[in-house]
Amino acid sequence: MSHREADPVPGGEVTEAAVAAGDPHAAVDLLGALSYAQLSGFEALAADAHMTPHLRAKLIFARLAVGMFGRCERVVARLADLGVTEAEAMAPFAATIDAFHARTAPSDWLEGIVKAYVGDGILRDFHVEMATHLSGPVRDFIIDMLADVVESPDIVSQVQEAIAADPRVHGRLSLWGRRIMGETLQAVQSVAVERDSLTALLVGGEPGSDINETGRMFARLTAAHQQRMTALGLTP
Amino acid sequence: MSHREADPVPGGEVTEAAVAAGDPHAAVDLLGALSYAQLSGFEALAADAHMTPHLRAKLIFARLAVGMFGRCERVVARLADLGVTEAEAMAPFAATIDAFHARTAPSDWLEGIVKAYVGDGILRDFHVEMATHLSGPVRDFIIDMLADVVESPDIVSQVQEAIAADPRVHGRLSLWGRRIMGETLQAVQSVAVERDSLTALLVGGEPGSDINETGRMFARLTAAHQQRMTALGLTP
Repeated sequence: MSHREADPVPGGEVTEAAVAAGDPHAAVDLLGALSYAQLSGFEALAADAHMTPHLRAKLIFARLAVGMFGRCERVVARLADLGVTEAEAMAPFAATIDAFHARTAPSDWLEGIVKAYVGDGILRDFHVEMATHLSGPVRDFIIDMLADVVESPDIVSQVQEAIAADPRVHGRLSLWGRRIMGETLQAVQSVAVERDSLTALLVGGEPGSDINETGRMFARLTAAHQQRMTALGLTP
Repeated sequence: MSHREADPVPGGEVTEAAVAAGDPHAAVDLLGALSYAQLSGFEALAADAHMTPHLRAKLIFARLAVGMFGRCERVVARLADLGVTEAEAMAPFAATIDAFHARTAPSDWLEGIVKAYVGDGILRDFHVEMATHLSGPVRDFIIDMLADVVESPDIVSQVQEAIAADPRVHGRLSLWGRRIMGETLQAVQSVAVERDSLTALLVGGEPGSDINETGRMFARLTAAHQQRMTALGLTP
């Protein structure tokens, strides 16, 4: 589905030599999706902080939220360099990403930190995969920024402690992690088909690229997810 | 009302020469109240970001929230220097401060930014007033940290624009600002009477100090509040 009426780059003309001679629409759209994902992730993590009565868990969520918003700010600044406002770039993706968070609202703080770990992991991997099909500086900007993210060791220890204290937590959180994977994969596909430019990136970027590349990308996202579940001590 | 059973400084002994020979209880309690106020302010502002559909307003709220949490982190680090965990120090104040935010949940983003501006202003002034009665490094730490806070010029411009666009907003937000003042003053008094050490600070810190000092402090808080309302273009 295309929304050309809300096109943030009406003439196809963006500065920095049309985003280094790639598809300027794709670069702006991917930055827009990424920035809104970080902004809504900030909101969701802060809501998790509010939900939990445990002060240590509140601080973990708040730190994750602040890191998420820091990335949002970096993308907003990069969009501003390209002459695009955050509102123009983010708006096409707000409904889809908000709906994802509404469907995956955690019922307790343990579900919240598992979502933060595995859901945001998939989201980061997805944006890196999409960015590899961009050309030029926006590709490097996205890949470098997301490579800098350091997983909170507190998440792993908190989940492992909770499982040790009550073995039933293992099954419940394993099931929850699988649900988060399914919902996140569905959300990123919804984001990708929201804009023609992103759909083009999803199937490999260049004309003639292999549609099977999409399948391989999702296989890589799934494999990385399984590693994260294992790191948490959960069954993928 | 005193809660000695939850006393974070059981023996009255805190490091750094019993917080530079002042009342170590008062220093830890004031840091605890301040850190929880910043943490819950972070949560409330992030909830405001989530509530509003306006992307520019979302970013304003998120930036305020991140600044608030940065101050929380600085206080948590200061508490750690004193060998006190954040949970021990914050816990006595959580219910009172959470209740304040529950009673003052904004119904739209304009109410949210007025609350952020005038409510947080009173809270900062209150902590500075209380800190002046401490002795030693914690006094300077609190006063210096809160002096560094820069009001967001975006708040003033957004409120003024909203009033220009719809003059009825002026009366509604003026009323709201007065309500926030009343609720905030009530909340800081509840915080102060939660601990004997803070009640002592509230009445001037030293034995023999003038009970009328409390009244003068509230007069100063009120005067500063009126200046902030005027800055927003509202009727105090």
